[in-house]
Amino acid sequence: MNYQPINFAEKLSKFSEQWSPKIIAQMNDYHLKLAKIQGEFIWHDHPETDEVFIVIKGHLKILFRDGEVSLDEGEMFVVPKGVEHKPVAESECHILLVEPAGTVNTGNVVNEKTASHDTWI
Amino acid sequence: MNYQPINFAEKLSKFSEQWSPKIIAQMNDYHLKLAKIQGEFIWHDHPETDEVFIVIKGHLKILFRDGEVSLDEGEMFVVPKGVEHKPVAESECHILLVEPAGTVNTGNVVNEKTASHDTWI
Repeated sequence: MNYQPINFAEKLSKFSEQWSPKIIAQMNDYHLKLAKIQGEFIWHDHPETDEVFIVIKGHLKILFRDGEVSLDEGEMFVVPKGVEHKPVAESECHILLVEPAGTVNTGNVVNEKTASHDTWI
Repeated sequence: MNYQPINFAEKLSKFSEQWSPKIIAQMNDYHLKLAKIQGEFIWHDHPETDEVFIVIKGHLKILFRDGEVSLDEGEMFVVPKGVEHKPVAESECHILLVEPAGTVNTGNVVNEKTASHDTWI
């Protein structure tokens, strides 16, 4: 039989909501998630886990309390666990996240930006 | 300070060896690895872990005992743990792997295709 690949563009075409990561795959107890982001997120950290950001399209800046990193398409960064960060994207940016299943987008903070952590697309 | 992103193209420019994944990042106890592959790999499985394949450039086919999946750039697949598979690429293909640190490329098989599992680039 022919198995189906997971196509990032096709998955991204299925939603428009920003700051709301959608699960596209599971590997062991980790999820791979696509998200569309634009504007400024909130300062937060993930006390229990590192978090992988891979830029699929656009430009992402991640602010830290002591600096920042700028990511273009084809670039990635691992935010270490417990490190406060604030993602910022001037124009809409598409990212792939890799993190443990159950990881909440706002980490240690719960507010109006907190999205579902178990929505598959 | 300005932190440095991990750039796939820049990392890929640093090696030409095929079938020898190079670690570019660690997230918790997982590694992200880039590999250049061409031709037919060997049948093997990873008894302890799922394995993520993401195609960065080119075209990858993964054969299974009961079928296959074809992946182009911007597509991914998760090979479940314990499932025999055989990656094949007609022309050179660049892939990003996500798997637990220590995962050996030939899984349950050790032969001349077995590469280092702890080479950073």
